[in-house]
Amino acid sequence: MKAKTMKRKICFIGAGNLATHLSKALQNKGNDIIQVYSKTIASAKMLGEVLNTEYTNSIQEISTEADLYIVALKDSAFTEVLSQIGFQDKLLVHCSGSMPITVLENYSENIGVLYPLQTFSKSKELDFGNIPVFVEANSESNSELLVQLGQTISKSVRELSSEKRKALHVAAVLACNFVNHMYTLAEEYLDSEQIPFDVLLPLIDETARKVHSLKPKEAQTGPAVRFDKNIIDDHLHALDNFPETKELYESISKSIFKHHNEKS
Amino acid sequence: MKAKTMKRKICFIGAGNLATHLSKALQNKGNDIIQVYSKTIASAKMLGEVLNTEYTNSIQEISTEADLYIVALKDSAFTEVLSQIGFQDKLLVHCSGSMPITVLENYSENIGVLYPLQTFSKSKELDFGNIPVFVEANSESNSELLVQLGQTISKSVRELSSEKRKALHVAAVLACNFVNHMYTLAEEYLDSEQIPFDVLLPLIDETARKVHSLKPKEAQTGPAVRFDKNIIDDHLHALDNFPETKELYESISKSIFKHHNEKS
Repeated sequence: MKAKTMKRKICFIGAGNLATHLSKALQNKGNDIIQVYSKTIASAKMLGEVLNTEYTNSIQEISTEADLYIVALKDSAFTEVLSQIGFQDKLLVHCSGSMPITVLENYSENIGVLYPLQTFSKSKELDFGNIPVFVEANSESNSELLVQLGQTISKSVRELSSEKRKALHVAAVLACNFVNHMYTLAEEYLDSEQIPFDVLLPLIDETARKVHSLKPKEAQTGPAVRFDKNIIDDHLHALDNFPETKELYESISKSIFKHHNEKS
Repeated sequence: MKAKTMKRKICFIGAGNLATHLSKALQNKGNDIIQVYSKTIASAKMLGEVLNTEYTNSIQEISTEADLYIVALKDSAFTEVLSQIGFQDKLLVHCSGSMPITVLENYSENIGVLYPLQTFSKSKELDFGNIPVFVEANSESNSELLVQLGQTISKSVRELSSEKRKALHVAAVLACNFVNHMYTLAEEYLDSEQIPFDVLLPLIDETARKVHSLKPKEAQTGPAVRFDKNIIDDHLHALDNFPETKELYESISKSIFKHHNEKS
């Protein structure tokens, strides 16, 4: 049992938004980040200096001393980078919602996933404590180890299969990435009318807050759910100079109407 | 000057979500709601009882004693109801983001708009203090009166023209109604995978919180902004049983990619 409570030496492969937030959170909670690798030296250096730890942009210099390698790369960069590293069956973990655990099976006997369900922007500080972390591994003991590691930073750590994690990622794209794009379209349009985006913030906050206590379907308001054709047509006309936003306005309005008038 | 600080007697025409929240907030801050009208007696009764005030579903019984009539009806019900009431040039106000002030000009010499920018669901309590309220009127003195009334319930009261109010309403539909529909689609899909919607709440909250300190465009993350085609195709496939969500997934992803790769 002693070994389990010993500090694990962690090497980060990748130094982007997720790597930055996750490595800082792990280090803050006493985990030992011994090295950071990024193919871009500036990124490696920036994160290495934040963590006050070794950094490199050379695959050959990646430490062989780590007990755990956490890969936080763009999915598209995975194979290229991992195929050049010898992991000697150390525990190798990725953090991606979209990739199954099996993408790691050519690189080590001990593999896992640690997926924090959150949106990470470098310049925005985060409290990891409330971020749900989903864990998967190829053995009971690896899974246990990742749950323990996850629990050092988050109150909410659960095991979840690759298949379910993908489903969660799809939902996260809808509820976060697409939501943020709605904010972007709103800001772009308000800019053209010289109205500051900030006036929307109380509405944005309340829209998020409402689904803590109401089901999203019950929380729906606005012209589309009532199919108030006059307003919808008027809004479409107002968006004449934003043809792409106008098209989305129309298709999302139709979808809202359908959901509230055909299926319930 | 005395008259201005006297309590105005207010009659609400309409007893829906907006009327409920607004009348309660006004009453809580010492304003005198003397009557509630709704064509549905159950709605009139429910709000009348909440406010402990008179209620009616008969247009003939609408009080002639009020100084201010606040119309909170569906836009489509406006003309039918208002054309039957004699307002004797009392101040007549609507609360709609989408209708110009001029829709009231056939019914009184004193008209205005008091538009609280928020999403109202009956079963969800609200703190009006932070809700931006936008005011418009046909005269300086009416405008001043509405600003004062707005300030009894909100710290943020501004004058805004009908044209700008419409623009704001379009943006609110994007940033609230469409956002909530993304939550609905996410929940529907998660349900089919037996994953509880609640796991998304920290992500939903952070997505809203981020745009307090970052511009929405800077806050954008996810596969579409990077145009990670593998993930996008994989997600589209995962949504095969939700053809409508799939279609929106595709068109919103395209719009995100365009915004971040063509215009910046």
